[in-house]
Amino acid sequence: MKVFLIGANGQVGKYMVDFLKQSEKHDLTAMVRNQNQVEQLNSLGVKAVLADLEGSVEELGEAMKGSDAVIFSAGSGGKTGPDKTLLVDLDGAVKSMEAAEKVGVKRYIMVSAYKAYDRESWKDSPIKPYMVAKHYADRLLAASNLNYTIFGPGILLNEPGTGKIAVGEEIKKTSIPREDVARTVVEALDKENTYRKTLEIMSGDTPVVEALENV
Amino acid sequence: MKVFLIGANGQVGKYMVDFLKQSEKHDLTAMVRNQNQVEQLNSLGVKAVLADLEGSVEELGEAMKGSDAVIFSAGSGGKTGPDKTLLVDLDGAVKSMEAAEKVGVKRYIMVSAYKAYDRESWKDSPIKPYMVAKHYADRLLAASNLNYTIFGPGILLNEPGTGKIAVGEEIKKTSIPREDVARTVVEALDKENTYRKTLEIMSGDTPVVEALENV
Repeated sequence: MKVFLIGANGQVGKYMVDFLKQSEKHDLTAMVRNQNQVEQLNSLGVKAVLADLEGSVEELGEAMKGSDAVIFSAGSGGKTGPDKTLLVDLDGAVKSMEAAEKVGVKRYIMVSAYKAYDRESWKDSPIKPYMVAKHYADRLLAASNLNYTIFGPGILLNEPGTGKIAVGEEIKKTSIPREDVARTVVEALDKENTYRKTLEIMSGDTPVVEALENV
Repeated sequence: MKVFLIGANGQVGKYMVDFLKQSEKHDLTAMVRNQNQVEQLNSLGVKAVLADLEGSVEELGEAMKGSDAVIFSAGSGGKTGPDKTLLVDLDGAVKSMEAAEKVGVKRYIMVSAYKAYDRESWKDSPIKPYMVAKHYADRLLAASNLNYTIFGPGILLNEPGTGKIAVGEEIKKTSIPREDVARTVVEALDKENTYRKTLEIMSGDTPVVEALENV
């Protein structure tokens, strides 16, 4: 698949770049915001295009045209101000979905947050405004015509991945290494049984591919 | 109609309270956040109930149960921080729509912002994050089963209303007194020809009732 990655410079996105580079099934294009990042990725042998989530749907569509799948792994993670949360995590994400629909990209994977769909689960969260943005981005994705998968990871860790996860619709919140999130998303790209599903992911006991085949 | 007003203490909402009190067709209940406001409204002869847009859909549903129409005129207007924009202008608004659907309130009028539906019109706005919140609240409303009307006023003025407006789907942006916005919303409550429409409103040459009948 021709994979268009939004958020290649993020903490999860960097692992995705590694996995996609190694993959023999996929051909990666990374979307980045400035020319430095293009050159940095090119020097690693990765194709990169300039586009901005704060730009127009047309600009995003132009950048992803010809791709088979979009991965959305960009985001502030609650650390930037809530103005950027509205502009990037919500509107930027939805514009990328509209762009995908517009230029005929059918597959879309969203890296979301644990149970973003369930207000009750984050009503007392210290990053509630961020959860609101993710909630609505996911709602608009679920209402789209895209073959989406929404992944809701637990607490993200920087330790090395184990390659083993728990994935499904009712997984208790624990934690998961960012590397395992990235591996799961990349492995899910061509798994049709994950289409139109919202799945929580945590560290677990099952190898990623097997875990995904059983959702 | 039994009208449930969210945002009765706002600059536009206060005019709505006046018009609804004077109306022989309508029976007003105002939703407010604290007991002081309840007492203040009661002393004016207005029924008031306590509920919070940052609370649950259930709480909002309980408060508006038995109403025929909801008016949403709450909001930060871009002046509070963007965290409240996410929590109130977006999630609070959508929760009130979900509450209306849940308890069987069919009519819903949203006081939105000029062309919130059209990203191009606010891409360089100084209150872009606020516009994003209004954009998505309106999108969710348009996707609901409610008999909605979304009003997008021009620049809001504090001068007295004239009772004359221009209203429609392609009205050039100028300005409008808050009093005329309130009058228009109240007059629109029982105008079925305004159902499921997004209408811009400005100061104009046509009396409110006549202008609304012709949209």
